[in-house]
Amino acid sequence: MKKVLAELITIGDEILYGQTLDTNAHWMSGELDGIGVKVIRRTTCGDQEEEILQAFREAAQRAQIILITGGLGPTSDDLTKPCLAKYFDSEIVMNKQALEELEQYMSSRGRELNKLTRLQAALPDKCEVVSNERGTACGMWFNNLGKVFVAMPGVPHEMKFMMKAKVLPRIKQEFDLPIIYHKIVRLAGIGESWLAEKIENWENTLPENVKLAYLPTYGDLKLRLTSIGSNLNEQKKEVDLLVQSLLPLVQEYVYGFDDDSLEMVIGRLLKEKNHKLALAESCTGGYVAHRITSIPGSSDYFNGALVPYQNDLKIHELGVKEETIVQFGAVSEETVAEMAMNIKRKFNADYGLASSGIAGPGGGTDDKPVGLIWIACAFGEKVKTRKLNLTKDRDVNIKLTSVALLTLLHQRLVAKD
Amino acid sequence: MKKVLAELITIGDEILYGQTLDTNAHWMSGELDGIGVKVIRRTTCGDQEEEILQAFREAAQRAQIILITGGLGPTSDDLTKPCLAKYFDSEIVMNKQALEELEQYMSSRGRELNKLTRLQAALPDKCEVVSNERGTACGMWFNNLGKVFVAMPGVPHEMKFMMKAKVLPRIKQEFDLPIIYHKIVRLAGIGESWLAEKIENWENTLPENVKLAYLPTYGDLKLRLTSIGSNLNEQKKEVDLLVQSLLPLVQEYVYGFDDDSLEMVIGRLLKEKNHKLALAESCTGGYVAHRITSIPGSSDYFNGALVPYQNDLKIHELGVKEETIVQFGAVSEETVAEMAMNIKRKFNADYGLASSGIAGPGGGTDDKPVGLIWIACAFGEKVKTRKLNLTKDRDVNIKLTSVALLTLLHQRLVAKD
Repeated sequence: MKKVLAELITIGDEILYGQTLDTNAHWMSGELDGIGVKVIRRTTCGDQEEEILQAFREAAQRAQIILITGGLGPTSDDLTKPCLAKYFDSEIVMNKQALEELEQYMSSRGRELNKLTRLQAALPDKCEVVSNERGTACGMWFNNLGKVFVAMPGVPHEMKFMMKAKVLPRIKQEFDLPIIYHKIVRLAGIGESWLAEKIENWENTLPENVKLAYLPTYGDLKLRLTSIGSNLNEQKKEVDLLVQSLLPLVQEYVYGFDDDSLEMVIGRLLKEKNHKLALAESCTGGYVAHRITSIPGSSDYFNGALVPYQNDLKIHELGVKEETIVQFGAVSEETVAEMAMNIKRKFNADYGLASSGIAGPGGGTDDKPVGLIWIACAFGEKVKTRKLNLTKDRDVNIKLTSVALLTLLHQRLVAKD
Repeated sequence: MKKVLAELITIGDEILYGQTLDTNAHWMSGELDGIGVKVIRRTTCGDQEEEILQAFREAAQRAQIILITGGLGPTSDDLTKPCLAKYFDSEIVMNKQALEELEQYMSSRGRELNKLTRLQAALPDKCEVVSNERGTACGMWFNNLGKVFVAMPGVPHEMKFMMKAKVLPRIKQEFDLPIIYHKIVRLAGIGESWLAEKIENWENTLPENVKLAYLPTYGDLKLRLTSIGSNLNEQKKEVDLLVQSLLPLVQEYVYGFDDDSLEMVIGRLLKEKNHKLALAESCTGGYVAHRITSIPGSSDYFNGALVPYQNDLKIHELGVKEETIVQFGAVSEETVAEMAMNIKRKFNADYGLASSGIAGPGGGTDDKPVGLIWIACAFGEKVKTRKLNLTKDRDVNIKLTSVALLTLLHQRLVAKD
């Protein structure tokens, strides 16, 4: 089977000027890889007609599928649509389907269609509409001599929705693709190089057609096995056996598979047990609550959170003893343990999580440097605490602490005792 | 003055497969923009000789400066060096300077030079060494018929150090560069097309040398003016005058300039007034607290937050009247107004913000569909409320609501009354 090749073209001066980080191309690369399309090149060009047309011509020489993002807005610096019209020798006319969908989208949000927004429904007459249920700029699908060009908006959530709902399914239908089977094992509480050492022997037994990738983000690690072949059942069987032989080596760090996230798995476990969770977040400042509540249906098991950013709220709202803070400080095992136990009781929960630390960049002392963070998980009459020594970077510390805190709860939820 | 044009080439299969997010090209774009070099294209290609050579040839046709990252390691899948040697018809030989620097680097870290690492000092004989003080792969500088090719390692901190210490200074020296001046106006509470309509006449008066870009994310909008010239003071004066003539048209939506964010500006205003903030977040679930506390020093003005995800916490912890919830529902103007007022009082703050809504995807009714969200800002004895009709997407709703809530507070903080 010949490989199906794709190129991604991102359009926008703001990317070339370094003002906007292009996360779209990164996400699209992963999705295309997942369905067996090989991305051979990514190009970013500016809001200049000739540069865009040149990028189209070059890409069409190499790839069968050309996916384009950005430059679809209604303003004068948005050139993707006129460039596609020129490239395909097509005329821009009001598209009935696009206009209907646009009117529906606007009216569902109780808004009027103004002159400029209406222009979004004017499209090259040689393209098919790719509906955008998340915004006003619809996508365009061109098919010319076996080359497919698809233009999508640059707003990430609009593009992602369009890719998942429309573009990927149609690519799978129209092209003869190899079968790719991915299995992701998700781990937390272990670093990449420690993991690599632990599973070195296992890794050496992997067959040719199965590739392994380590994908770490902030203390959360994905281990992805990819099998390329032509028989999904056999591939599944082979990969699942490999995973079975991996698990005993890393069991204590594994929290899930595939699209699982820590907050999702925790949600499932809490729901199963009909247990409730409450949070007292000082240094994480609401970020753990945000992660928990990002899961649909979290109101079934999440009672609530308190972010006591001042000591007097820790004392008067959360009931931490004043002498604990005076004697040990707000950033201490003693304080964080009281926080976790008290929030559990006060919010009628089965588990109470708490964080207190010096997120930085300021506020550190010799004794308690930036990056020193205490976390705790209370359950029944017990509290489990952990001390973290993290970085000098505030944002990184908040993210790493949230993973550590969720990991502490997850370990509790799956504990045998 | 003719523009100096650059292209960036990133080499690595791991980027095309969506495993590694390419932050290097983003950072380099910003740095080049800052010294007046125009990046006209960014290309990512895989670890394949022919693809890399093709990218070199194409880039050399368009740009004077070609910056390359990645593929400099000592293993067989690292092809940048052999490709450059082939492209410049050059032979790879042991480079004395590179070897000395490599030996020094290794011995300063108490490490031995092994065979594989030693190979890092073998370079094409037509390049100059660009020293790497942070790692083992040195950079290469080629100059051929006025085209400069510079290859740098893909490890971000090594590349950044090399760019700052060696590459950017030499580019400034060897090329005759224009002066670039950017000014960004930051707005919230207005959509892109509404804004475009409002400022259409003003936009038409912009001179040739000043470009305008709209950069929106989740209800937060950057309007960027870029001036290209040869006299920084004059450019600043011209752009600042243009901004002065823009402001009266959009004053109510402007919250800041350049690198400002809503949470940063709010923090500055609260600190100036010595006023304190408290939050009661239901549908935003801690995300607004996270944004506020992502700013270093936010403990100076942020008292804390309550996330009452269950109605009984809204009643017993926050003191919302039970009959309010029974009569109007938790998602109502009446409930959110009480939440805002009560959190302000309870947490001894000057401002209380509250959110309550149906974030989705489930939980909607005909009467109160997904995306219906009420927000409120309490100050003194007053409460200002707003009703939002947002999307079906939970994550988008949370983000849009956070911007709306911060905008409501910002409007209050800058109000004249």
